[in-house]
Amino acid sequence: MSLNSFGRVFRFSTWGESHGPAIGAVVDGCPPGLAINEADIQPFLDKRRPGTSKFTTQRQEPDQVRILSGVFEGKTTGTPISLMIENVDQRSKDYSDVAKAYRPGHADYAYDAKYGFRDYRGGGRSSARETASRVAAGAVARLVIPDVDIFAYVSEIGGDAIDYARFDAAQIDENPFFCPDPIAAKRWETLVDGARKDGSSLGAVVECVASGVPAGWGAPLYAKLDSELAAAMMSINAVKGVEIGDGFAAARLRGEQNADPMRPGPDGLPLFGANHAGGIAGGISTGQPIKVRIAFKPTSSILIPVDTITREGEAADIITKGRHDPCVGIRGVPVVEAMMALVLADQMMLHRAQCG
Amino acid sequence: MSLNSFGRVFRFSTWGESHGPAIGAVVDGCPPGLAINEADIQPFLDKRRPGTSKFTTQRQEPDQVRILSGVFEGKTTGTPISLMIENVDQRSKDYSDVAKAYRPGHADYAYDAKYGFRDYRGGGRSSARETASRVAAGAVARLVIPDVDIFAYVSEIGGDAIDYARFDAAQIDENPFFCPDPIAAKRWETLVDGARKDGSSLGAVVECVASGVPAGWGAPLYAKLDSELAAAMMSINAVKGVEIGDGFAAARLRGEQNADPMRPGPDGLPLFGANHAGGIAGGISTGQPIKVRIAFKPTSSILIPVDTITREGEAADIITKGRHDPCVGIRGVPVVEAMMALVLADQMMLHRAQCG
Amino acid sequence: MSLNSFGRVFRFSTWGESHGPAIGAVVDGCPPGLAINEADIQPFLDKRRPGTSKFTTQRQEPDQVRILSGVFEGKTTGTPISLMIENVDQRSKDYSDVAKAYRPGHADYAYDAKYGFRDYRGGGRSSARETASRVAAGAVARLVIPDVDIFAYVSEIGGDAIDYARFDAAQIDENPFFCPDPIAAKRWETLVDGARKDGSSLGAVVECVASGVPAGWGAPLYAKLDSELAAAMMSINAVKGVEIGDGFAAARLRGEQNADPMRPGPDGLPLFGANHAGGIAGGISTGQPIKVRIAFKPTSSILIPVDTITREGEAADIITKGRHDPCVGIRGVPVVEAMMALVLADQMMLHRAQCG
Amino acid sequence: MSLNSFGRVFRFSTWGESHGPAIGAVVDGCPPGLAINEADIQPFLDKRRPGTSKFTTQRQEPDQVRILSGVFEGKTTGTPISLMIENVDQRSKDYSDVAKAYRPGHADYAYDAKYGFRDYRGGGRSSARETASRVAAGAVARLVIPDVDIFAYVSEIGGDAIDYARFDAAQIDENPFFCPDPIAAKRWETLVDGARKDGSSLGAVVECVASGVPAGWGAPLYAKLDSELAAAMMSINAVKGVEIGDGFAAARLRGEQNADPMRPGPDGLPLFGANHAGGIAGGISTGQPIKVRIAFKPTSSILIPVDTITREGEAADIITKGRHDPCVGIRGVPVVEAMMALVLADQMMLHRAQCG
Repeated sequence: MSLNSFGRVFRFSTWGESHGPAIGAVVDGCPPGLAINEADIQPFLDKRRPGTSKFTTQRQEPDQVRILSGVFEGKTTGTPISLMIENVDQRSKDYSDVAKAYRPGHADYAYDAKYGFRDYRGGGRSSARETASRVAAGAVARLVIPDVDIFAYVSEIGGDAIDYARFDAAQIDENPFFCPDPIAAKRWETLVDGARKDGSSLGAVVECVASGVPAGWGAPLYAKLDSELAAAMMSINAVKGVEIGDGFAAARLRGEQNADPMRPGPDGLPLFGANHAGGIAGGISTGQPIKVRIAFKPTSSILIPVDTITREGEAADIITKGRHDPCVGIRGVPVVEAMMALVLADQMMLHRAQCG
Repeated sequence: MSLNSFGRVFRFSTWGESHGPAIGAVVDGCPPGLAINEADIQPFLDKRRPGTSKFTTQRQEPDQVRILSGVFEGKTTGTPISLMIENVDQRSKDYSDVAKAYRPGHADYAYDAKYGFRDYRGGGRSSARETASRVAAGAVARLVIPDVDIFAYVSEIGGDAIDYARFDAAQIDENPFFCPDPIAAKRWETLVDGARKDGSSLGAVVECVASGVPAGWGAPLYAKLDSELAAAMMSINAVKGVEIGDGFAAARLRGEQNADPMRPGPDGLPLFGANHAGGIAGGISTGQPIKVRIAFKPTSSILIPVDTITREGEAADIITKGRHDPCVGIRGVPVVEAMMALVLADQMMLHRAQCG
Repeated sequence: MSLNSFGRVFRFSTWGESHGPAIGAVVDGCPPGLAINEADIQPFLDKRRPGTSKFTTQRQEPDQVRILSGVFEGKTTGTPISLMIENVDQRSKDYSDVAKAYRPGHADYAYDAKYGFRDYRGGGRSSARETASRVAAGAVARLVIPDVDIFAYVSEIGGDAIDYARFDAAQIDENPFFCPDPIAAKRWETLVDGARKDGSSLGAVVECVASGVPAGWGAPLYAKLDSELAAAMMSINAVKGVEIGDGFAAARLRGEQNADPMRPGPDGLPLFGANHAGGIAGGISTGQPIKVRIAFKPTSSILIPVDTITREGEAADIITKGRHDPCVGIRGVPVVEAMMALVLADQMMLHRAQCG
Repeated sequence: MSLNSFGRVFRFSTWGESHGPAIGAVVDGCPPGLAINEADIQPFLDKRRPGTSKFTTQRQEPDQVRILSGVFEGKTTGTPISLMIENVDQRSKDYSDVAKAYRPGHADYAYDAKYGFRDYRGGGRSSARETASRVAAGAVARLVIPDVDIFAYVSEIGGDAIDYARFDAAQIDENPFFCPDPIAAKRWETLVDGARKDGSSLGAVVECVASGVPAGWGAPLYAKLDSELAAAMMSINAVKGVEIGDGFAAARLRGEQNADPMRPGPDGLPLFGANHAGGIAGGISTGQPIKVRIAFKPTSSILIPVDTITREGEAADIITKGRHDPCVGIRGVPVVEAMMALVLADQMMLHRAQCG
């Protein structure tokens, strides 16, 4: 059943808890002969790394990745690639209250209901720290599909959206919010800082685009490209919604508005007049850019007291001390990119398996 | 890789094309000893059946299911349950144009790009007809989780939403739209009929609720209940978006607004003050109702000409003759319910495997 | 978990019971564009078909296969291929005793212990009749690997082995035992007929060779080619042992005897001086013929009374009336060939997925 | 496809090469609440550990296991258990010849044919060192099925078999061969030492028995208990044959000889008169002890020169310097036990999933 694995052919598994000695990923099925070393992975981890601005958690983790297997003389061998990241800056003392009472919005109660007890330190396995393992695995996935270009950005925080007329991809890495609209990025400084000072938190919407995917990746019917992407994105902590292409907005269009008309293109490929479909039809890529939109709820760890119950079922209230992201969607950007890369690498190989 | 299977423990596979001799599902891993016969499955198929009102396709299919294996003396034996539905009312002649040119919004071009050719009759494998197999499998799944109550309804068609103040579950089966708001249902008659007469089509939003799910189903991290539901729903034809609980609206809330506060309840279980999370935290059920929202795009088969290209890459325009749903989301309701049942039956068994 | 499926990329599932209306297989992941029709499958089923000589069961089954999906205009489409074989000559009345008491050597007791009850007619799901579905699926698999030549034969019945000095592949289809040694085949007539008249049964050894497999198929470590073959063969009814290459005899060799020395060959490939390894090293094919040896126990259905207990736990004795193979290993030959084809088709595609 | 994972519900993956920094296993799906720490795993690793007698390789590896995740306050949490063993005594210089030419019987040529190159140090991923990871995972599996007793032993080395009349389980741990017959153990000292001094190697047969398995574990048809065991055992390095119960000897019995007659037993369970079936009928356990027999070929690493070719295809001869087991089957004993435990833990959970 592979509770902690993802992918069909290019497949990765993650392990580790927020406050254990380390976290990691094992990538299985990677093609042989790809040039790789730790320096190819580290930049993606650095992008996700906490403690880089006042808008993210102040936990200081170097997130230094080690390759423990599957690479020989700088190339992948085709055997499992074991990636390990040590946990350095755990402060278990912060979590004493959490051991006793459930934080609403967190997995605390659900874990106790399922397993009978839980590793309460920093959320244990349910901590967003696990996503560092995905980012490391995603860096490997990118090497498998070198012609695919993937980028994500935050398009909305706390209901305040970017202006697409000002969209500038070059801006994304120029501000702490991965925001392509510099005016919105300015507004968000105030917004996020305000939430942080209030001990509150904000939700966000992340958008991800993959271009360079040829027509033909994906498969009917339960391995559809959009179905895999939905599973991948919804598995990220705090994600509550996924849209492909126009998503919910498509439900408000008429058939003729939603059609992506085709005309003969210069290179024998179709020239599409629109991309309402987000690059996927019938679960299979059309050659247009793949577009996914993801909703992150506000961080559940807040300093404002919320009604709850204790493990013994008594009424209590709880605040979540410790160091938390006021808007977990921001650091979701590299995670979304990693999941996109992981799904596409898998689908490329799956396609190659069946169609040669 | 199981391209056409879904589920981990309670697992089903579907096969069949729109215009082949039959379609079907094989359900594997079903618990033994459950009382079942064709009459337990048929009502769900009847609910999805085409040709029952002028708001759905006029194709006439009795959708009579046969159980070919896995049941002995009226009880499941624990071996695979093979379910077959014969195709009766195929009219292959309607699809001659489709053989030559690609219908925008359909899988035609993507299938050709992937496989080199396609069964163009009625969309072949990409036809929504496949969902009848899911509905049959879903009827079996319901027997596995008898204490779970599942229902879905249409909450919006063509951008016209129900008024939740008028929500009446008893109304859902009283109109051809599975609409819980009788006033909206009236409006939709005009709306859908208008689109049909225009040769156009409309999108829709379907909502699904499962109550009676105990806390503890689901699993970290890539087998999360919400991740499985997202994959399940996104695998349905024409679906472009999935939300759990508040979904994208959660991205606009602050942490303290989005928390679902807990208080001690009368029976030792928590009493939740809200259900923004849609019954799932950390990928595991909380005991609250599971809530999912699904966006269906407008049917791509329309009578309004759209620019396209032929298989040879020439410019053309195309209209889709034949018999089609003006709003495919309507008949999506029993399919969404089936997928919910299939995911939950699987998760119940998965939970039992690990936690006894 | 896919209890009734096999394969990773080229994947098939079977369903059906001995005395239900039909049995069948669904083949998923098949490459598109392969020419196929029922006539390509039927000869393999005919080879396995009961009632063709007095040395096999007298049940008369035409075993006519129907392709219900996945093929369009005579070519595979890449979607699931549903294959169905109707059961024609069931005689359920033969099995009344079996309903009450357990046949030693059969699955009766184990099924009851697991599921609480069982379809006792002809062994239900545990009947060797299921292997017809595998043979049908195997015929499809052969199309995926057209350059691989697969054949199997019986090398031993009831302890009486062929003389390899007389091995003649052309003889295999010239006698009812798939025996490559015509002298042994003559002896076996008397041997098997004697066992049949005694109401007893005999075991057999089947050997299978696949040539034309290039070096490089298979994978470490739990997808090893030999591991997959062992699972495939051991899943066949009545199989109790599997050997690759020299098998148990290798355990009696010294390292230098067991080595398969290599010399440069005429075409740039190695020329091997022996094939103790059976064509597999480290779980990966070496380019030599793949060799597997399979032990079939004697048919458990015999007319000689055996001590047993009833469902209520009372002492009883039982004989198995009905029509049975005196040596089930004989009809195992086309099943073993089918499993070889199914494993190799899968491994070819798996290799293509990872290594391009 | 999970090339390096095994199991359906209780599932483990291994990673690592002979001469990399470490090897390890990730166990996924383990039930929560089981008491465990490193000291529960270490004795099994110590049993497999090299360098403990002159009859095994002289490589000195402490094989100290670390638990990196999935355990909190001494109990399994239900999340992945990451187990790591550092490689300490690598001597990469020993393997320079191996880089240039292929060792017959080894995976060298097959790996190069598949992947284009290979980590030649100590066999890389194909080294038997990987089995330490299995032994660690197997120690966890044993905790899941505490009522099952598993033991294995060597029954034959180099064709010299034990005398079953002298079988004494208490002797197994009293000699360096895991031999239950003290007289045979004495003979093997001379035998194995002779092979070692000759620079040669010997094959072996290992037998494994699991008692305490209740009737009902296992499943039709491709998840049969015997099929899973065959795959598990055949995945171990150097294994070339697997038998369940009487195995190939059953092929020489008549039906009435091979039947395991049943009589009412004292506790409501059947009392079996024999166990030819090895505790499995129809792929499902019968309540009798599970019996498996496994053939290990002689170690391919020998000091006697063998004809081979270089990577460039030139004729050469090769001897394998370095430190090797003269009989790899001996250290196979704890590995076989581990695989038995891993299969049974998985099957128990699989049974619980379906049958409650």
